Amino acid sequence: MLDPEQVARWLREDLGHHDVTNHVPGETTGRLVAKEPGVVAGLDAAEAVFDYLEVDVTERLEEGAHVHSGDVVLRTEGPAKATLRAERVAVNISGHASGIATRTRRAVDAAHEVNEGVRIAGTRKTTPGLRGVEKRAVVAGGGDTHRLDLSHMVMVKDNHVAEMGLEGAITHFREQASFATKVEVEVEEPEDAPRAAEAGADIVLLDNMDPATTEEAVELLPDDVLSEASGGIRVSDVPAYAATGVDVISMGSLTHSAPSLDLSFRTG
Amino acid sequence: MLDPEQVARWLREDLGHHDVTNHVPGETTGRLVAKEPGVVAGLDAAEAVFDYLEVDVTERLEEGAHVHSGDVVLRTEGPAKATLRAERVAVNISGHASGIATRTRRAVDAAHEVNEGVRIAGTRKTTPGLRGVEKRAVVAGGGDTHRLDLSHMVMVKDNHVAEMGLEGAITHFREQASFATKVEVEVEEPEDAPRAAEAGADIVLLDNMDPATTEEAVELLPDDVLSEASGGIRVSDVPAYAATGVDVISMGSLTHSAPSLDLSFRTG
Amino acid sequence: MLDPEQVARWLREDLGHHDVTNHVPGETTGRLVAKEPGVVAGLDAAEAVFDYLEVDVTERLEEGAHVHSGDVVLRTEGPAKATLRAERVAVNISGHASGIATRTRRAVDAAHEVNEGVRIAGTRKTTPGLRGVEKRAVVAGGGDTHRLDLSHMVMVKDNHVAEMGLEGAITHFREQASFATKVEVEVEEPEDAPRAAEAGADIVLLDNMDPATTEEAVELLPDDVLSEASGGIRVSDVPAYAATGVDVISMGSLTHSAPSLDLSFRTG
Amino acid sequence: MLDPEQVARWLREDLGHHDVTNHVPGETTGRLVAKEPGVVAGLDAAEAVFDYLEVDVTERLEEGAHVHSGDVVLRTEGPAKATLRAERVAVNISGHASGIATRTRRAVDAAHEVNEGVRIAGTRKTTPGLRGVEKRAVVAGGGDTHRLDLSHMVMVKDNHVAEMGLEGAITHFREQASFATKVEVEVEEPEDAPRAAEAGADIVLLDNMDPATTEEAVELLPDDVLSEASGGIRVSDVPAYAATGVDVISMGSLTHSAPSLDLSFRTG
Amino acid sequence: MLDPEQVARWLREDLGHHDVTNHVPGETTGRLVAKEPGVVAGLDAAEAVFDYLEVDVTERLEEGAHVHSGDVVLRTEGPAKATLRAERVAVNISGHASGIATRTRRAVDAAHEVNEGVRIAGTRKTTPGLRGVEKRAVVAGGGDTHRLDLSHMVMVKDNHVAEMGLEGAITHFREQASFATKVEVEVEEPEDAPRAAEAGADIVLLDNMDPATTEEAVELLPDDVLSEASGGIRVSDVPAYAATGVDVISMGSLTHSAPSLDLSFRTG
Amino acid sequence: MLDPEQVARWLREDLGHHDVTNHVPGETTGRLVAKEPGVVAGLDAAEAVFDYLEVDVTERLEEGAHVHSGDVVLRTEGPAKATLRAERVAVNISGHASGIATRTRRAVDAAHEVNEGVRIAGTRKTTPGLRGVEKRAVVAGGGDTHRLDLSHMVMVKDNHVAEMGLEGAITHFREQASFATKVEVEVEEPEDAPRAAEAGADIVLLDNMDPATTEEAVELLPDDVLSEASGGIRVSDVPAYAATGVDVISMGSLTHSAPSLDLSFRTG
Repeated sequence: MLDPEQVARWLREDLGHHDVTNHVPGETTGRLVAKEPGVVAGLDAAEAVFDYLEVDVTERLEEGAHVHSGDVVLRTEGPAKATLRAERVAVNISGHASGIATRTRRAVDAAHEVNEGVRIAGTRKTTPGLRGVEKRAVVAGGGDTHRLDLSHMVMVKDNHVAEMGLEGAITHFREQASFATKVEVEVEEPEDAPRAAEAGADIVLLDNMDPATTEEAVELLPDDVLSEASGGIRVSDVPAYAATGVDVISMGSLTHSAPSLDLSFRTG
Repeated sequence: MLDPEQVARWLREDLGHHDVTNHVPGETTGRLVAKEPGVVAGLDAAEAVFDYLEVDVTERLEEGAHVHSGDVVLRTEGPAKATLRAERVAVNISGHASGIATRTRRAVDAAHEVNEGVRIAGTRKTTPGLRGVEKRAVVAGGGDTHRLDLSHMVMVKDNHVAEMGLEGAITHFREQASFATKVEVEVEEPEDAPRAAEAGADIVLLDNMDPATTEEAVELLPDDVLSEASGGIRVSDVPAYAATGVDVISMGSLTHSAPSLDLSFRTG
Repeated sequence: MLDPEQVARWLREDLGHHDVTNHVPGETTGRLVAKEPGVVAGLDAAEAVFDYLEVDVTERLEEGAHVHSGDVVLRTEGPAKATLRAERVAVNISGHASGIATRTRRAVDAAHEVNEGVRIAGTRKTTPGLRGVEKRAVVAGGGDTHRLDLSHMVMVKDNHVAEMGLEGAITHFREQASFATKVEVEVEEPEDAPRAAEAGADIVLLDNMDPATTEEAVELLPDDVLSEASGGIRVSDVPAYAATGVDVISMGSLTHSAPSLDLSFRTG
Repeated sequence: MLDPEQVARWLREDLGHHDVTNHVPGETTGRLVAKEPGVVAGLDAAEAVFDYLEVDVTERLEEGAHVHSGDVVLRTEGPAKATLRAERVAVNISGHASGIATRTRRAVDAAHEVNEGVRIAGTRKTTPGLRGVEKRAVVAGGGDTHRLDLSHMVMVKDNHVAEMGLEGAITHFREQASFATKVEVEVEEPEDAPRAAEAGADIVLLDNMDPATTEEAVELLPDDVLSEASGGIRVSDVPAYAATGVDVISMGSLTHSAPSLDLSFRTG
Repeated sequence: MLDPEQVARWLREDLGHHDVTNHVPGETTGRLVAKEPGVVAGLDAAEAVFDYLEVDVTERLEEGAHVHSGDVVLRTEGPAKATLRAERVAVNISGHASGIATRTRRAVDAAHEVNEGVRIAGTRKTTPGLRGVEKRAVVAGGGDTHRLDLSHMVMVKDNHVAEMGLEGAITHFREQASFATKVEVEVEEPEDAPRAAEAGADIVLLDNMDPATTEEAVELLPDDVLSEASGGIRVSDVPAYAATGVDVISMGSLTHSAPSLDLSFRTG
Repeated sequence: MLDPEQVARWLREDLGHHDVTNHVPGETTGRLVAKEPGVVAGLDAAEAVFDYLEVDVTERLEEGAHVHSGDVVLRTEGPAKATLRAERVAVNISGHASGIATRTRRAVDAAHEVNEGVRIAGTRKTTPGLRGVEKRAVVAGGGDTHRLDLSHMVMVKDNHVAEMGLEGAITHFREQASFATKVEVEVEEPEDAPRAAEAGADIVLLDNMDPATTEEAVELLPDDVLSEASGGIRVSDVPAYAATGVDVISMGSLTHSAPSLDLSFRTG
């Protein structure tokens, strides 16, 4: 759900106190057009921007649709002034989200060529203010949101282990966390993976391991515990990790470093 | 100025309703460390995040400082719980802004090797919600903000020209705009550049012209009117545009497509 | 984390535009005192109210502490005017949260007398605007938050089953949900419990079953799938449900119908 | 007036960043149904929740209507997805407000059996964030809001009297307060009641007196000064206080301790 | 109470996204100085602006103090950059409020020369967003706030009387309104004044009557009912109305048309 | 663009928690009527208020229209309750803005009688919270907004000159400011005006000079540099300044001291 308050803030920061260039009378139609191939996302957000200014979105692609250069992504109809005011913000947010979906789709495709069952996931490395938009863009690209916020899943980290021991920390957080919450445990050595599983981890995060080490750790884990590879993995590294049998490959770069998809808005 | 309300929203979206993993008693120190070379920015924003949770920032680099891998960017001191809660958001915002500053600096350096006088500028293609943070990151990288919002400078565009003619549109907006506001005019043909200047443009935007055409247009302009090259210019294109004698090269990719700079936060 | 904006709204709604009765000069001390026995909670929120008006909280009990009538829960020191302005809001929020903690503790104790392993959990039936405060009050009373929001855990409900079939719905949401998210399935007949487990449910919710039927369903479930009893369960019903071997007993009344704990604030 | 911003916050806290269970296509109808007898309130708030998500409320009872188990309180029509998202918040707020209205009505009826002229009033002991909703629920139950906020009416309290004397304090606040504002004075001894009246009180609050003492104080007051009984009065105490001839009986428990009225929402 | 959120909005609207002129290093002192004689107000608001940016207000006059040209109203100490950023907003709000206090004081003095007992009151004709600041400025000038908002006092107006009759409307609102709320009745003919009093009005508003008619109406009213003269009364009209024996003279111009008091801020 | 959040705040501050006087059933029409001649503004804001409460504005004058006493400015149609709730806020904001437009128009007319080319401009001395509304009101009255916020135009002030010298400061800010931003320089002596122009000022502000000195300074300036007279200029001073040949006359009193235009709202 995109909050009208948030849309208002986006528009306000782009408009300022007195804009004289968009006082265009009458009605107009508009279309958001892809200028390069990719996967679109953030269209809910773009539509919320137009809605806020009472411009109708008459047609739009589904989140996650593949586009070619020249494809129309979304069409609008409404007052020219409002359309022009919405344009830049709508393009910025959908271009940003589509960039994330496009990169995610690339990683997912690379992974699935090797291993149909592996999931490509985002991380908490999102742009402040855009957690929801970016997580949904990862999903539009075929990826997995991973944990949405700190309260969604417990992550047992090295500082917890240093303080309470591996088993101690897991037991502690199993107790502290709701039955509704999964517990994931970060390990740095393959031999800690089965210990974590034994102690009650739902998921074991194999931190900064190369593919060979990852494979070694995966093999030590029982079937009903998920494994996740994480740590600076690039799209080009995905096939090697996918081949390890790991369940999840998570990549911060999906959200923090994907270039925008080139979209442009045309009126009239 | 970064708004505490905005910081609160950033923290809230990362925290959720009930986080059990950060209930660490006592005080801790922390440091934000560069894991790759680049130019840092967004440190005001990162500091605002720590401030909000009453963690002291005891030391930090200047916005725009060059860092090497391993350099400490910022140090904190305060309650462990608050430090851990601030960490992810502080890293996300400063990594994002530093990515922009780093790419800007690369473009500026590429330009200045050819032409000391040219400015590299951002555009309005910023991430919604982060206009101020991103514009200041462009400045930290040695770039120029370009117009901050629609009210800051009048941009006479093709739709205005279509409706009122080139001279008509410029006269109209000269009249409408405050004396405090510059008027920039977008032209697509070199021969329109001097017409725009004649009609009162402060700046002429040479839209989507290749370097040779850009140079042609620049030569037709009087000295007291600025020229700007714009339209899909990549860092690798910068030297060729810088050589044309144009005053400003603007690049949307500085803000919408710069990968994050790899920063990491360590406590204790 | 309690948001200063939220505290500001609470204070504003109680203060109005021009209050003349609290213009008391000088400093004062204050103490929040229990007027009946119970379990305290919401002290973070009460402290945030005093903090907002720059009144120091010099001492306070832990969330979840048991109090007797006359016990001091929290002490303050600061400007008399600010103390008086904070008082009513601080008492209201901590009395409300403590009422929830007290009722939760009663249910937990009743359950544990019969079965040490069962969890008492809240629901999403919380007071609008107070989700976090109330969930943390449940925890202070020894309870389990249950899911914090719709995104925290997937709940497969009767309408989903009607549309896709039990197995179909579970498979669908296993796919849709992140690997980080548990899937709970609501069933109305004991024999559907093992079907849900088989199809991949992490938790099976036994909806509106009496204790005998609940026990029957629990026995049909494999050990590694959790069971939850839910539906109008009162504190007096808890022992009977606890005896069924169910893992979780959830009760909306913990948050929507607990009377406030009687706390009072005294200055000077 | 219920603020859309407030509704947005309520929905956001229940939804989180990525809910996958409510993506139901098409339109649906819904009805809010009473599962126990009572008095309904908060329907304005429930309607605001549906409105916010563009679900039509096609029919609803009046605030303050009496319902039996099974009665339809409100009907909706609109997109299934939006209806499902609004449901929990709409039920929570109207159940909460209806619980207050129901308890208030019980107290009012108990009072009126003894004395038709007495008013049952709320206090400032409301749930933070819900002052307006709860005060209007008291009205729906036949009660009196009492003062809405600190600025609405001056309350002269024991600390004021300690500082300035009874007459001194009343004179002081008569001067400080607007002519538009009533002045109520809290007294602890019956003989102070006529002194307060004499000194200019519009209303005298008889604090923590038992019914007999209350009656004694009421008899000492002139006719044109109102009397209010307050201090831990339960519904079962109401008839005894009503019989004293007091004008107003105020009860914090109306708002801080009323159990929710059991309402449920059904679609399709 | 001035809300930090409101201060943040004020500062944000003056600052924009990137201000380069206030980057002054080091500390500075500042003083707010009167450039003409008057009565100061809004100093709480000005202090809140400095506080927000962590500039100390080391000394300030009381709200309502009389100043001569050259008098120092408030002194600050803190970072130069923050001081310069706060300056314009702090001057704007205190100049505005002081203008209101100054005009109010002029009206109060004019009234009291004729009649010590009459009150000069504001109205609801305040600048949107500044209700509290302006009402408190009226008080600083020796005036009466009148009703603070629609919920503070019931005003029975001509449209109510047209619908229900004078007595009917008063009876209706006596019933509807809390015992804590006064009821004022607007009349246009002197002979309606005693009818309104008889029917239960606490205050009778004599709408748009000249002084002679006002006097006539006042004489018809019993002593325990207040009278208010209202309707386009200017400061120069005040003595004539004060002489009528009316209790309250209300003037919209106090808040909607008072020129700002000339204040200036000097640093260093 | 007027923010619905801002409108919500305006309405909330006028309404309070429980208003009983505006519960009028049915529909009504309304009209905003001028009670004195002037220039109207703020009608966008008034319309936003009605819109917020879903009252249709069926007709309205243009911003900047001249009105006579009795002219209808705006007509509404919608629910009576919502119309009555919107009325006071809509009148307050449009009366305030129209007062500014009316005073601006008076100054502009006075100036143009002497010199057609001179501009009358506002300043940053606006009412906190209303920067946009007031700047647009100045425009409605035929004036110039001047700089909208600190980021819009660089103003080189005496403290900058004291620190860096006149030429140094101008060079510094030319470098710091975007190419999109004009640089204005404040001078106190006529002979500094050409120095500032020479050093790169786009505009020279002639601070607190009398008309004769202003004229002297204007004559020293080259044609392509604008001049602005500022400092306590009243409407009666405008002709003398207009005769000096200065390009811009700026007046803080347009926004901080214009009396409201008398508008009234009538229903039915």
